[in-house]
Amino acid sequence: MPPPTSAAVRAPRHLRLPVPLHLFAPGDGDDDERRIDALVRRFLEGEGVGSGVDEETLARGFRSTEIPAEPVAVAEYLELLERGVVAHATRTASPRYIGHMTSALPRFVLPLARLVAALNQNVVKLETSRSLSPFERQTLAMMHRLVYGFPPRFYDEHAQAVESTLGVATSGGTLANLTALWCARNGRLGPADGFAGAEREGMAAALRHHGYGRAVVVGSALMHYSFDKAADLLGIGAGNLVRVPVDRRQRVDVDALRRTVERCQAEGSLVLAVVGVAGSTDAGSIDPLEPVADVARDAGVHLHVDAAWGGALLFSRRHRALLAGIERADTVTIDPHKQMYTPVGTGLLFFRDPGLARAVEKHARYIVRRGSADLGRRSLEGSRPGAVVFLHAGLCLFGREGYGRLVDESVRKARYMAGHVRERHGFELLAEPETNIVLYRLLPSRSGSDAGADALDRFNTRLQRAQWEAGHSFVSRTTLEPGGGAAPVVALRAVLANPLTREADIDAVLDEQAALAEAMDDR
Amino acid sequence: MPPPTSAAVRAPRHLRLPVPLHLFAPGDGDDDERRIDALVRRFLEGEGVGSGVDEETLARGFRSTEIPAEPVAVAEYLELLERGVVAHATRTASPRYIGHMTSALPRFVLPLARLVAALNQNVVKLETSRSLSPFERQTLAMMHRLVYGFPPRFYDEHAQAVESTLGVATSGGTLANLTALWCARNGRLGPADGFAGAEREGMAAALRHHGYGRAVVVGSALMHYSFDKAADLLGIGAGNLVRVPVDRRQRVDVDALRRTVERCQAEGSLVLAVVGVAGSTDAGSIDPLEPVADVARDAGVHLHVDAAWGGALLFSRRHRALLAGIERADTVTIDPHKQMYTPVGTGLLFFRDPGLARAVEKHARYIVRRGSADLGRRSLEGSRPGAVVFLHAGLCLFGREGYGRLVDESVRKARYMAGHVRERHGFELLAEPETNIVLYRLLPSRSGSDAGADALDRFNTRLQRAQWEAGHSFVSRTTLEPGGGAAPVVALRAVLANPLTREADIDAVLDEQAALAEAMDDR
Repeated sequence: MPPPTSAAVRAPRHLRLPVPLHLFAPGDGDDDERRIDALVRRFLEGEGVGSGVDEETLARGFRSTEIPAEPVAVAEYLELLERGVVAHATRTASPRYIGHMTSALPRFVLPLARLVAALNQNVVKLETSRSLSPFERQTLAMMHRLVYGFPPRFYDEHAQAVESTLGVATSGGTLANLTALWCARNGRLGPADGFAGAEREGMAAALRHHGYGRAVVVGSALMHYSFDKAADLLGIGAGNLVRVPVDRRQRVDVDALRRTVERCQAEGSLVLAVVGVAGSTDAGSIDPLEPVADVARDAGVHLHVDAAWGGALLFSRRHRALLAGIERADTVTIDPHKQMYTPVGTGLLFFRDPGLARAVEKHARYIVRRGSADLGRRSLEGSRPGAVVFLHAGLCLFGREGYGRLVDESVRKARYMAGHVRERHGFELLAEPETNIVLYRLLPSRSGSDAGADALDRFNTRLQRAQWEAGHSFVSRTTLEPGGGAAPVVALRAVLANPLTREADIDAVLDEQAALAEAMDDR
Repeated sequence: MPPPTSAAVRAPRHLRLPVPLHLFAPGDGDDDERRIDALVRRFLEGEGVGSGVDEETLARGFRSTEIPAEPVAVAEYLELLERGVVAHATRTASPRYIGHMTSALPRFVLPLARLVAALNQNVVKLETSRSLSPFERQTLAMMHRLVYGFPPRFYDEHAQAVESTLGVATSGGTLANLTALWCARNGRLGPADGFAGAEREGMAAALRHHGYGRAVVVGSALMHYSFDKAADLLGIGAGNLVRVPVDRRQRVDVDALRRTVERCQAEGSLVLAVVGVAGSTDAGSIDPLEPVADVARDAGVHLHVDAAWGGALLFSRRHRALLAGIERADTVTIDPHKQMYTPVGTGLLFFRDPGLARAVEKHARYIVRRGSADLGRRSLEGSRPGAVVFLHAGLCLFGREGYGRLVDESVRKARYMAGHVRERHGFELLAEPETNIVLYRLLPSRSGSDAGADALDRFNTRLQRAQWEAGHSFVSRTTLEPGGGAAPVVALRAVLANPLTREADIDAVLDEQAALAEAMDDR
């Protein structure tokens, strides 16, 4: 924490400290509650997206690494916390913070967070969660139904059945994608002919047994980097994640996808999964899922759809057609903490086949015993909180229609922004937004579009950095492959997902960029 | 949610719903806050450990799987949530809930949970977390210093250095253990001689290149089941997790460990890691870490210590000697959400070598770029909340001494309980508690200890189940290998980690068990 850090070790002196039971006592901390509530209010009502203190100065405040020997008083601690940490946090709720997939949250989430902490359930097992386990199963089934739309009797049969797994809740999309490929791998390389399966014997033995030189996963160039992690972790190798080019709309080139899968199979590689991207992190683009599903079907390969970002479009009557074909996927990732506005730390994976997750089942002697209703039998994570409360509350308090409206509005605002970028002098729209991410750049007014590619990239990199450091508003940046063989370019990236963002905020963000560009030009 | 489930789809009718912006509006939800606060109070002040409603009845309440089309009013929803979910949650804070590693939390955690949700930071990258990233680095360094105790200049150099990783925060111990073995694997099978490394090429190619038939991980029979998951996930194979017998104190047999490692190496297997257990989930036992470290050093193998449970003993001047040698480990797991009383969902992994985590580094174009300060470059998870606030607050508000006292008191209570179990008629202590987990069983009074082993196991299984279902108090059960070749037995397992548990509560738990046993005898 920032200076004076030494304050953290100044503490009341006791010759002999008692066991600090008072901190656990019911009723204790009512004053602290009020202090923290006030602190939260000051943070949320503050201006701008950041404090404007540069990173180096900030880091200097966090150098002390000694744990205080004796307790710090709560009131004193909270002051340090506000001054040192909260004051310099990113105000992701700001209407002018339109750079990443983190945004304002509905206000009911705040007291629910307090509830989830107070419950302190652990859904790894029934004995530490009782109602929260069937509640999580129910909520997963509600979302499964949104994705796959099986008839009600399917859900009557499977939603609460101990041997069925319609989905797993994870801490985020990365673990959901990892779990999907884990299940695909173990399912495909299961026990057979005296071989105990990849799960027991490992990847080297599994590929040897099945006569493959390597395993690969194939998808769009815009697959999220969590697939690199997953391929690495699963012993597939990040180099065996095969990325296929995208078209100008940033959607996978389906012909190239088909040829790649066929070539891999022809050369003796095992294609473990085809990945469809439904809402790319870079561009918000959505692969054409029907033809992608055809490719997977024709090759006899597991289809995973990463709808971490785009899954919420299922709520929109206007836009859900963009996801047509998602119901053919064997597994689907959706992140409620993105466009369903739950707090960071809630991801979901869904299974078409309620038995697929058996391929990763594990047991222990003290919990998750064979045949138990413990959710931890088939989850990557062990201890997990009852965060499903956020998701269920969102589903009920927004309803399908409410979520649909929020998505529609995001897409509308992205089009508004794209229109303004297109018309504004000194701005260049780099891709038509497919959903609600806008990619564009600024052109230095002196050289205009005649500036060299490198100079343009440097200009936009500097501009994005300058806006971030000023702390009034924020967009992110990425590197865009424009498609059609053109060279990659640095793009500014606006994510229009914050419901509090109005058109005037978008205008203000662009105005600030124009002003920053002019100032940079003059230097 | 429990009946009437149909209520969840009864909702106000609107012909055309507006975009639900009001749910995001500052100031909105003040009444809801009060409702939820009251709900939390009712839950925490309630009696017993559970509602006593049996699982089947409970599950029937969670059958509805339709997402409401239109929003439910918040007040109505909260009523359903309380009646259907909260009322049937496990009261892990109860002083008589001494069955698992989940317990009462300090009260300051509740408003902090609200703060963490309000901040809605994402520490995967600086742009969505600003101060929270250096804050997490600082807090990890504080804990690293507790574990490894390097001189201050080490922390001055590495705590905030972009290229150094002293630790990673995870959603729990499972991911920490997985990350440890991931780093060990990629570090050992790195790029060399024209081979791009396991990270790029996968496990099959890596073992082929290095001339091994298989990779193994070796540790005690009491290794947590997360190691089965990790071995499976990492392409090692859960069957290549080699479990070595424990002694009567439930500590790994070091001679057997050494022989096993040597045998594996002699037969051409690659020993990727030796695992030391510091606080077994089953018994709370701690492997003798010094000789375990000698085995790893002599074999030239990565040493991982799983101190998810036992790590908190480092705070205790009285008991920390039990962990002597932990500072020789290459990686160490500690779970703050166990004996450091943070909410479920906070695990930690520490690295002796600040460069080891480079072996798993990943990049993307829109974040975690090469050389960036984004914490997501080297974490298994992607999006992660600012949960480090809980850990830092705990370190400051308890201090080293406060945590030490809590651990000392837990151990003292475990000895108290063990003493009573030993003296009570009809009870049998199965192992002297090494720390704060007590393993014991009851003997049917009619047959006494002459009952067959199977009958005794069934008796204790039924008894544990009956106590859980009654909902007044709770211990868990496991299967104990008594060591020395004796057959495994079903054991009741009491975890004495709840600071609110008094001696009278322990007596009451035992009294209830005696009464239940008598009632079962009479049937």
